[in-house]
Amino acid sequence: MTGAEAVLQTASAAGVEVCFANPGTTEMALVNALDAVPIRAVLGLFEGVCSGAADGYARMSGRPALTLLHLGPGLANAIANLHNARRAYSPVVNLVGDHATWHRDADAPLSSDIASLARPVSRWVRETKAPAQVALDAAEAIAAAQEAPGGVATLIIPADCQSGEAPGPAQSIPPVPARPVGADRIEHLAKQLRRGKNAALHLGGRALSVRGQRAAGRVARATGCRMFSERFPARFERGPGLPKVDRLPYFPDWVASFLEGLQMLVLAAAVEPVAFFGYPGMPSRLTPEGCELLTLATADEDVEAALEALADAIDAPPAGSAPTPSPPRPQMPEGPLTPDAVGTVLALLQPEGAIVVDESNTTGIGYFEASAAAPRHSLLTLTGGSIGMGPPCATGAAIACPDRTVINFQGDGGALYTLQSLWTQMREQLHVITLICANRAYRILQLESARAGVAAPGPQALSLTDLSRPAPDWVQLAAGMGVPAERADSVESLRDALGRALSVHGPHLIEVVL
Amino acid sequence: MTGAEAVLQTASAAGVEVCFANPGTTEMALVNALDAVPIRAVLGLFEGVCSGAADGYARMSGRPALTLLHLGPGLANAIANLHNARRAYSPVVNLVGDHATWHRDADAPLSSDIASLARPVSRWVRETKAPAQVALDAAEAIAAAQEAPGGVATLIIPADCQSGEAPGPAQSIPPVPARPVGADRIEHLAKQLRRGKNAALHLGGRALSVRGQRAAGRVARATGCRMFSERFPARFERGPGLPKVDRLPYFPDWVASFLEGLQMLVLAAAVEPVAFFGYPGMPSRLTPEGCELLTLATADEDVEAALEALADAIDAPPAGSAPTPSPPRPQMPEGPLTPDAVGTVLALLQPEGAIVVDESNTTGIGYFEASAAAPRHSLLTLTGGSIGMGPPCATGAAIACPDRTVINFQGDGGALYTLQSLWTQMREQLHVITLICANRAYRILQLESARAGVAAPGPQALSLTDLSRPAPDWVQLAAGMGVPAERADSVESLRDALGRALSVHGPHLIEVVL
Repeated sequence: MTGAEAVLQTASAAGVEVCFANPGTTEMALVNALDAVPIRAVLGLFEGVCSGAADGYARMSGRPALTLLHLGPGLANAIANLHNARRAYSPVVNLVGDHATWHRDADAPLSSDIASLARPVSRWVRETKAPAQVALDAAEAIAAAQEAPGGVATLIIPADCQSGEAPGPAQSIPPVPARPVGADRIEHLAKQLRRGKNAALHLGGRALSVRGQRAAGRVARATGCRMFSERFPARFERGPGLPKVDRLPYFPDWVASFLEGLQMLVLAAAVEPVAFFGYPGMPSRLTPEGCELLTLATADEDVEAALEALADAIDAPPAGSAPTPSPPRPQMPEGPLTPDAVGTVLALLQPEGAIVVDESNTTGIGYFEASAAAPRHSLLTLTGGSIGMGPPCATGAAIACPDRTVINFQGDGGALYTLQSLWTQMREQLHVITLICANRAYRILQLESARAGVAAPGPQALSLTDLSRPAPDWVQLAAGMGVPAERADSVESLRDALGRALSVHGPHLIEVVL
Repeated sequence: MTGAEAVLQTASAAGVEVCFANPGTTEMALVNALDAVPIRAVLGLFEGVCSGAADGYARMSGRPALTLLHLGPGLANAIANLHNARRAYSPVVNLVGDHATWHRDADAPLSSDIASLARPVSRWVRETKAPAQVALDAAEAIAAAQEAPGGVATLIIPADCQSGEAPGPAQSIPPVPARPVGADRIEHLAKQLRRGKNAALHLGGRALSVRGQRAAGRVARATGCRMFSERFPARFERGPGLPKVDRLPYFPDWVASFLEGLQMLVLAAAVEPVAFFGYPGMPSRLTPEGCELLTLATADEDVEAALEALADAIDAPPAGSAPTPSPPRPQMPEGPLTPDAVGTVLALLQPEGAIVVDESNTTGIGYFEASAAAPRHSLLTLTGGSIGMGPPCATGAAIACPDRTVINFQGDGGALYTLQSLWTQMREQLHVITLICANRAYRILQLESARAGVAAPGPQALSLTDLSRPAPDWVQLAAGMGVPAERADSVESLRDALGRALSVHGPHLIEVVL
């Protein structure tokens, strides 16, 4: 068996089911071995599609997908979305082809230092040295990606290690699970929370699962503490029957107001709130002065069990023992199609079980509140801040969950980085509905500039945040990628278009003109 | 003055005239300072557009452009085309914003190891430590990029070093010029070439300028040696009055035939021919067994002067003393639109002074021969092998040379990586004509697979090299970016469409269906 076959058999035996690929010549042995394993090969026309899709797939399935990338430049194109995957703790296994070991000295045009590119986004990087080693390397990469809380592993495989003879697949390596939180820490936190201070649970990672939130809700009801999620959760389960969990705001002054008066902040797989960017005169760390900071569980600890143990330790009644109040359902908006109206229409129309991949940025600021009363759904957000995550993440989420509707609520600026995702959505016939929020600007930069006190940017500065000359035509861009599309410029037309898109299986794009 | 103003004044004083930008919040001080200097700000909707445009601009102007990129992920998106720029020895200065120095410890979502990402494509990397230092750092970056033969310099500027008070711009630092080649080496090579062996000059870099080729042509006429260019020249001046210079073929077995019988190979700012990829049973280095390898000039030496000195040392008659034979002009093809026919139509219609950015890959294999008789033009090729170079490189070349027609002869697979370039071409009203060779496949991978002996790839392997399900519609994709476009599916329709595109200023795209 070849090294390539051994790698893919190893991956399949370890539970890997999908490979998001944009291959080149140095990966052809792996490409040609894909038909012999039950691993689904999904082509992306740009590597950022592959890495973003692997992130979305991992967030929804909990399992790693492979990416297949072409040397240093191929990996480089994947990095922006690997950065988001890293911040989401998504298990992802990159297989990066390289020149044959004996060809490296030639410094052929595509040679580069692949490991240096991989390290900033990978918790584990290795270059395979020989075909006999490659299957074991793959098994280690897969285990490394799955080690709690999950992360990116990059295995660089020279072409001769793919085509050379390998002894066979390697045994799966059980990944390191989340570490249990000790009883001492639970007891200590229970005692602290019983002191009746103005306290809050800050929920991240698996604390935002159904199980995590139910346990957190018990603690909140029993102690009166607040609960809020990190600003950019990887996956946030929401809907009826779950306790009310707020979300940390974006700008640091908003966070300061939000946290005002807090005396105790308990971190549950979240980190201390920090400013997204550093602003002059504002602190990096946003915990109020004098507020105690306590850790229930770090990202690599079993936060769901810890929340349950904490609830038990304070003798909180079981989940479901008190009715969960239903948040108010917003009114269907009327009048002009404002950013808030877009979010409200989406919140009112999104079906049961929707996966909402939200990279709507400024347009979507009101959506989180508006969707509190929406049917059960999963919310996936921009964990690493690297825009262009939405379309590929939605693609991968749809592959992980073929029976659910995926809605990519997406800013136009970000969508332009990875619009090739639409093509993969069409090829794979995925039920992804893309709502492009077409404000034809990098609006967040205009806001940031105004907040920084720039009263009148010059014409060049203005031109660098303006996407209206020419205005990208998303109906034509989508059609160019094979995806049916229409334009909405009023509440009514958006409602109608979204209704139509929801009623037909397959990808669909709506350009929402703001 | 702020650090940002000091950086841009320093750059302007050093001769920088263009900044290809895709900024974010951490670059807003630089954005807002752009209106105070005579530096043209050009927005790209994806960072690979910015880096590829800076490469094309540098190849045609000889001067560095700035890129303005947003932290690690922004730089990462630029890397594939920086890789090509590095292999082209193009001077490029990346300004990469970063979090404020005091904000780094917070590990905010967009934090990453920017320097590790930059190093593989940069000859010079620095992180500015203080606003007082930033102008000097910029001056050093600009000099480093221009040090012969040219390269990529990356300066990472924390936000507080942009907005903080700086003492003023820094003086320009004269870049290190190409080193002269010593008389000894010239004498030695003259003696060797006079021995009447079967010899060849291998021309790269500035040896492919008009001056370089004229001097090389004198040597070739006087000694009977052959002349050929490297496979992927950064810039190759071609047309009437220049000596005949062949081009190294792509596949190593073709190179072996091409070099067969050669006894002496003289490197003139080119490196020894190596295989683009390592193939089992074939060597990396393709110089024939027993062939002497001699270096006239390395990339950082003054190859034009060295070629002139060599010609003088062998008493070669001056350039122009013998008529340069005109290569045969091909016939206008008839019948079906084959790949060769596309190249021939282009060669016959391209106007005087065209800049041809050739990333046509398999479609364009016949174009080099066909265009030997075309009017004077500059040929820019895929130096680093990282596809997606053509559309942005053409964009930058057009900004460098507003009075010339730019033709991007482009494979569809590669174009899909950086199609956002079309938008910049429209916004800046650049006269770039894009010929998309729509074979709807990664044809090179299909060829490589067949050459590797894979007789019948499985359905998944086939799907990973197939772009026909769905076939991207380039007329709609271009229109979506604002660029007028049409489709050609016959020799006649291609000829007519190209004629129309050439007659109107501004960008135009022709999808050539193969």
